[in-house]
Amino acid sequence: MTETARIGLLGKGTVGGAFYELLRERADYVASVSGKRPEIAGVLRRSEGDFEEILAASDIVVELMGGTDPAREYVLRALGSGKHVVTANKQLLAQHGDELFEAARANGVQLRFEAAVAGVVPVIRVIQESLAATEITKVFGIVNGTTNFILTEMARTGATFEEVLQRAQELGYAEADPSDDVGGADAAAKMAILARLAFHTPVGLSDVSYEGITDIRPEDLAYAKQFGLSLKLLGVAELRDGGLSVRVFPCFLYSGHPLAPVEGPFNAVMVEAPAITEITMSGPGAGGVETATAVLGDVVSILSGEAPVHQATRRLEIVRDVASSFYLHLEVADRPGVLAAVADVLGRNDVSVRSVVQHGQGDEARLVMVMHECPESRFYAALRELEDLDFLRGTPRAIRVIEEEFV
Amino acid sequence: MTETARIGLLGKGTVGGAFYELLRERADYVASVSGKRPEIAGVLRRSEGDFEEILAASDIVVELMGGTDPAREYVLRALGSGKHVVTANKQLLAQHGDELFEAARANGVQLRFEAAVAGVVPVIRVIQESLAATEITKVFGIVNGTTNFILTEMARTGATFEEVLQRAQELGYAEADPSDDVGGADAAAKMAILARLAFHTPVGLSDVSYEGITDIRPEDLAYAKQFGLSLKLLGVAELRDGGLSVRVFPCFLYSGHPLAPVEGPFNAVMVEAPAITEITMSGPGAGGVETATAVLGDVVSILSGEAPVHQATRRLEIVRDVASSFYLHLEVADRPGVLAAVADVLGRNDVSVRSVVQHGQGDEARLVMVMHECPESRFYAALRELEDLDFLRGTPRAIRVIEEEFV
Repeated sequence: MTETARIGLLGKGTVGGAFYELLRERADYVASVSGKRPEIAGVLRRSEGDFEEILAASDIVVELMGGTDPAREYVLRALGSGKHVVTANKQLLAQHGDELFEAARANGVQLRFEAAVAGVVPVIRVIQESLAATEITKVFGIVNGTTNFILTEMARTGATFEEVLQRAQELGYAEADPSDDVGGADAAAKMAILARLAFHTPVGLSDVSYEGITDIRPEDLAYAKQFGLSLKLLGVAELRDGGLSVRVFPCFLYSGHPLAPVEGPFNAVMVEAPAITEITMSGPGAGGVETATAVLGDVVSILSGEAPVHQATRRLEIVRDVASSFYLHLEVADRPGVLAAVADVLGRNDVSVRSVVQHGQGDEARLVMVMHECPESRFYAALRELEDLDFLRGTPRAIRVIEEEFV
Repeated sequence: MTETARIGLLGKGTVGGAFYELLRERADYVASVSGKRPEIAGVLRRSEGDFEEILAASDIVVELMGGTDPAREYVLRALGSGKHVVTANKQLLAQHGDELFEAARANGVQLRFEAAVAGVVPVIRVIQESLAATEITKVFGIVNGTTNFILTEMARTGATFEEVLQRAQELGYAEADPSDDVGGADAAAKMAILARLAFHTPVGLSDVSYEGITDIRPEDLAYAKQFGLSLKLLGVAELRDGGLSVRVFPCFLYSGHPLAPVEGPFNAVMVEAPAITEITMSGPGAGGVETATAVLGDVVSILSGEAPVHQATRRLEIVRDVASSFYLHLEVADRPGVLAAVADVLGRNDVSVRSVVQHGQGDEARLVMVMHECPESRFYAALRELEDLDFLRGTPRAIRVIEEEFV
């Protein structure tokens, strides 16, 4: 007779509902591969269920309610009661990772969260297990499907951010309150999780410098198209200057970059290490069934055996002033001396110009420049000075550029 | 005190030597993540070591000798003695998978082989673990780095297969005897392994229909370039007509295909399933250190806990006559009625033409055609008839084409 594994389900929204259905459909199959048949022991919703009763009746708690309160308390209670936990809650892990991982370790139980980053793309498992013996130097990628959908559509149609956001909301690719996605906080939480796992160091949301895509304009994408570049919201975590840099920012990529072809709501993550060159993984980053599939994969792993719990083995310093190359778009008055004044500001701040193109005339005049790589602090110092120049007709727009070949 | 895990190493060539070094470098680190410190208990080479002594002294046997004899006997002996086994030996698994998996299951030990397919790209782990609860419908990709390097260089330089093969041998991307790689047998063995795992059915090398790239000519790649296509050696395993089709063949891909940008010695594998749309993974497919990294990842997984052993839960029929779209290149005499005769043969075999271009004149005359999708048996019946036409100046060349969008 096959043993039963009792699953306590916290939350039954889009992902929770999809997980509930998937578990029912695939229970026999899971039993055949893991030797244990999963069964829902109880469901907690606003209108249904009692947490303590569900906890007592469960072997594994699956947290799909989102938010950090009361999710944090429930997950800590579950781990403290010796139950394995599976969650898709990136904010919970990014903000309270230290205590959650410690609780899992102290109680000898598993805390799995493949679905928290890049949906069903198995980036957590690959970093924690496939590359467990590898010295990772960099993890980066496109980890927010909403913003990638918006940038793809802006590039395709020439529409504004606001127009495409509305379309994304109608299609279900963006939430009613999209601020976490478009402002970069969602990607920042995911990068905090990836950085923690890849570099074995405590990383929280507050360690991540992030920007979103709300200021991106159709002209920026028109520029990108003209030069064969694509614009992506990138998350980057890397060893720099003896410490760790974790950032999220919009960035132009040259057309041969492995992330350039990742379009629409897809996610993609690249892992670099000297021993492996690089691995790239991509797939759908969100969606109820996709996320539920990743959650069920974690449940199967727990049913199949033990796995190591993440432990921070060092404490890296967070480095914030890294070197970058920037694109700079200035709307200027059409009069002599403008370029000289701009060049003077850049020169005094030791920012060197790689290319400059002057577009339009009169009220349409603008300078589009690309800088050589330099510490971001120097570029931003120059940018602040530029903002004070009296011939500017609008706020300067600066976007990072990645143009070098990787391989 | 940290427990020690004793590793018996069979073979110390390129991969074995790299694994030996890597294990020494990373032993402390592995101990910190798994709780057990791996140590080499003995090395078997032609000139060194005794298998029975090494076996008795080991907890895990790592087989990196290659070939099926005596590797098969050694691995069976190790599994039979209750030792976990890690191997990178694709031919061993493709030809003797049934008895090896059965031996692992019967003895309650693990048989891990991430390095056997696509090197450090974690395709085995993703199929067996991340997607353990998912109904996979198709696994396909570029699983041979030598041929991808050759095709990439042929496209880039316009050189012939023979010229590029020689360069690949000089650079170490092709072996002195390259026939397993360029003839498709290496990719076929890997696809047999992937098909077995993805579809939970016994699949051996003899179930795979395969072709290599030895007949590819510079003209084919010139054609590809002209139409924005890339030419890849594809492995495809998919559910078709209630059974399973596993094939390896050169194929044109449209430029937006996720596998089109995979160049040089890189490998890439895509997995499709209704619940996940598709996942793509890519990275270096070979190399001593890369492969050794994948082997060490398997060792860490064994040290960290138990995992399910593959078990065939069904027995799918092998389907061989699938539908494909073909490119057909005919060198013909430059005289009236040639196109009509060709069209007649195709029409009588119910093969429909999507496009046809007539190139050159006199001794340079040729027809380049692309067909609509049809059962391959019909296309090949037409091809056999075409070969008998008296105005042909050379053997017809046929290559499959994938042009439809995937997402």
